[in-house]
Amino acid sequence: MADLKTDEDEAAPPTAHASAASDRRRFLARGAALSAGVVTSAAGVPAFAADTPAIAVPSWSKAPGTPMRTYGTPSRFEEPVKRVVASGYPKISPGTGSSLTPLQALEGTITPSGLHFERHHSGVPDIDPLQHHLVVHGLVKRPLKFSLETLLRYPLVTRTYFIECAGNSARNTGPQPLQVSCGTIHGLVSTSEWTGVPVAQLLEEAGLEPSAKWLLADGADSAAMSRSIPLDKALDDAIIALYQNGERLRPEQGYPMRLLLPGWEGNMNVKWLRQLKLVPEPHHTKDETSKYSDLQPDGKSRQFTFVLGVKSVITHPSFGMTMTGHGLYEISGLAWSGTGRITRVDVSTDGGATWNPARLQTPVLAKSVTRFRIPWEWRGQAALLQSRAIDEKGNVQPTRSAWNALYSPGNRYHHNAIQTWSVKADGSIANVYA
Amino acid sequence: MADLKTDEDEAAPPTAHASAASDRRRFLARGAALSAGVVTSAAGVPAFAADTPAIAVPSWSKAPGTPMRTYGTPSRFEEPVKRVVASGYPKISPGTGSSLTPLQALEGTITPSGLHFERHHSGVPDIDPLQHHLVVHGLVKRPLKFSLETLLRYPLVTRTYFIECAGNSARNTGPQPLQVSCGTIHGLVSTSEWTGVPVAQLLEEAGLEPSAKWLLADGADSAAMSRSIPLDKALDDAIIALYQNGERLRPEQGYPMRLLLPGWEGNMNVKWLRQLKLVPEPHHTKDETSKYSDLQPDGKSRQFTFVLGVKSVITHPSFGMTMTGHGLYEISGLAWSGTGRITRVDVSTDGGATWNPARLQTPVLAKSVTRFRIPWEWRGQAALLQSRAIDEKGNVQPTRSAWNALYSPGNRYHHNAIQTWSVKADGSIANVYA
Repeated sequence: MADLKTDEDEAAPPTAHASAASDRRRFLARGAALSAGVVTSAAGVPAFAADTPAIAVPSWSKAPGTPMRTYGTPSRFEEPVKRVVASGYPKISPGTGSSLTPLQALEGTITPSGLHFERHHSGVPDIDPLQHHLVVHGLVKRPLKFSLETLLRYPLVTRTYFIECAGNSARNTGPQPLQVSCGTIHGLVSTSEWTGVPVAQLLEEAGLEPSAKWLLADGADSAAMSRSIPLDKALDDAIIALYQNGERLRPEQGYPMRLLLPGWEGNMNVKWLRQLKLVPEPHHTKDETSKYSDLQPDGKSRQFTFVLGVKSVITHPSFGMTMTGHGLYEISGLAWSGTGRITRVDVSTDGGATWNPARLQTPVLAKSVTRFRIPWEWRGQAALLQSRAIDEKGNVQPTRSAWNALYSPGNRYHHNAIQTWSVKADGSIANVYA
Repeated sequence: MADLKTDEDEAAPPTAHASAASDRRRFLARGAALSAGVVTSAAGVPAFAADTPAIAVPSWSKAPGTPMRTYGTPSRFEEPVKRVVASGYPKISPGTGSSLTPLQALEGTITPSGLHFERHHSGVPDIDPLQHHLVVHGLVKRPLKFSLETLLRYPLVTRTYFIECAGNSARNTGPQPLQVSCGTIHGLVSTSEWTGVPVAQLLEEAGLEPSAKWLLADGADSAAMSRSIPLDKALDDAIIALYQNGERLRPEQGYPMRLLLPGWEGNMNVKWLRQLKLVPEPHHTKDETSKYSDLQPDGKSRQFTFVLGVKSVITHPSFGMTMTGHGLYEISGLAWSGTGRITRVDVSTDGGATWNPARLQTPVLAKSVTRFRIPWEWRGQAALLQSRAIDEKGNVQPTRSAWNALYSPGNRYHHNAIQTWSVKADGSIANVYA
């Protein structure tokens, strides 16, 4: 596939004072080839001014700017970059539903906390942290009640993890592909640097009874969102998250504390966490039976599906963008797996007939998103853009047909099928099923 | 030093169903020792309820919470966590001065963008990104003018770097130690995940003339903040940053584009970047002569001091906090170096007489901050807390007296001396010179 270049390594800086010819050779060696005849810009975009360009003096350079502020916000020109609010259950409460991260407008791997997706079952409680406690009880030797102050005296760990709602990408399960943004389809996944107390420390402190096999975790929201957590996961890498991207958790992500189960479906990462009760078996709460159960082709539900599958999505180009002329583009997206690290992301521009490996942004972290990028030269040809992620256990992101075969047509959970964006000759981009 | 425990590795999760005795042994093995006689909480804080504790039902659990929002903000209970605005030059403009990151209230390594420190020389310009351009000209074969749209078609890289103002910690150069928060002294350092275009790509595109040795970079603010940048740095790891923590740059950090020179003094990371002019020698701009020059003991200024020294600071416990009782605490802080990776941080509780290595949060990234942590048992003893960072080139953070010997008493730049917090028997904490 001649139009897709592999760029395995970070751009090697050129040596100063190299000739134009060697510059060109080096640029070609990096894979970001210039089109024949396009000599002014690697991106193929008019960027050349024949004379030394004049530097215009705009109004904002002529008068002092605005003062320092105690807490900053984005530029007013970025107002369109916001969460898409999808209140799915307005009859229950305006806070029941979800909002989605605008993935197509973001870069890198961290989700700004203001744009982290939301999924609430009864809105966001306004919790006074001094009045909130976490209770660890049930099948333990020493039931414990923790204030926030107490938790903050335990040794903390910091980890960057994604959280993905089990219902993410369900908008792609309908009969016709929706013509909406990447984030509106796939934006129930977000990534933060979390800091908190390992759950194992608290369980060790409480002392487990031999019959303790599961934890019942519930939240202080008025839905009392509750899930059953296998003990092994709690003892493995679960944390009580207290900080998100450096500051205390945002209210929408469980302020003042949430359960974090890296790589497991978002719903289990119980927000506004108020208790961990050690029990002998799962509770089959409403939140793990009426919802968040996967319907199989024979009409039966799987008992539980905790781990999120390997997945990726191209964030740009994607629906809502328009190609701005022929030349070089960078195809960029996110890949993640609940199982561990991403080891490879392949990109296709011909609907999966041929694939080329993308460059992975380092460091690649387990159970976090990995940014992938690959240069692409677009000369006006029709294209079907796809990405396919592979994780360290060899799990490969399924095609749409392979995913469909696993479930009943009504299943809306754990949709990790390959996304296809169709680029047309006029430069428009559509969501298609392929 | 019996009261300071080393915890080199991440907490190893205990095995399920272990006995209380083996739990205790494992906990001791991790270094977070229980005090003799304290049996209820690792932190030494009353956390035990004799019976299964009742779970109180607060008001926020009884009614639906607030709806989803398009852009989130912190909890109202976190309002005290804000930047400290220090408008140093009110006669010039209210936007001339700085605001500082409240380091003592944060955890992990990322600085939330709303709390990234500010240092402006004429306020924050309100730039329309569609009207802004970057010009690369001077000693180049092909002068180039880049719109934001053009830049976004180049291959991007994502890196997590700190930015530190060369004047950070200058508040600790006065005759008496100020009794202010850690962030008010040391908060002119912040860390973000930055995404942008390598400067080397643009210079390669422009084609360097052999006489090009420096770049003059200036901003579109009304101060036209300008600095001279050695070509080698521009070709090494400099980027034109377009995204900060996933979203587009914040206005205070240079929206829509800033120069990023990893590990070099903040002032050189020119915000609102509008030109890179290739020149044969440094320009000696007002911003690199009247300011940001280091005065040596003989009264002469160093020509330039670009690279930030190896440095660390304990963020908690620190001034403004009060010890909440005897027992286990975690000493935690940040370490960084403009030269590369942090390899070790030693912590002392006796004013530098003895040292123990802290646990370093992984991944340790070059020219980013590294979180260090070490457990400490406080039994009411007076203590002098210090941290000392060492980087991969073997640079060791200097003591206060060693730093003082390097400069004229009037020098306010590149202050990287060891910070001392004095913990008194009553649990109060003071800033002291030691």
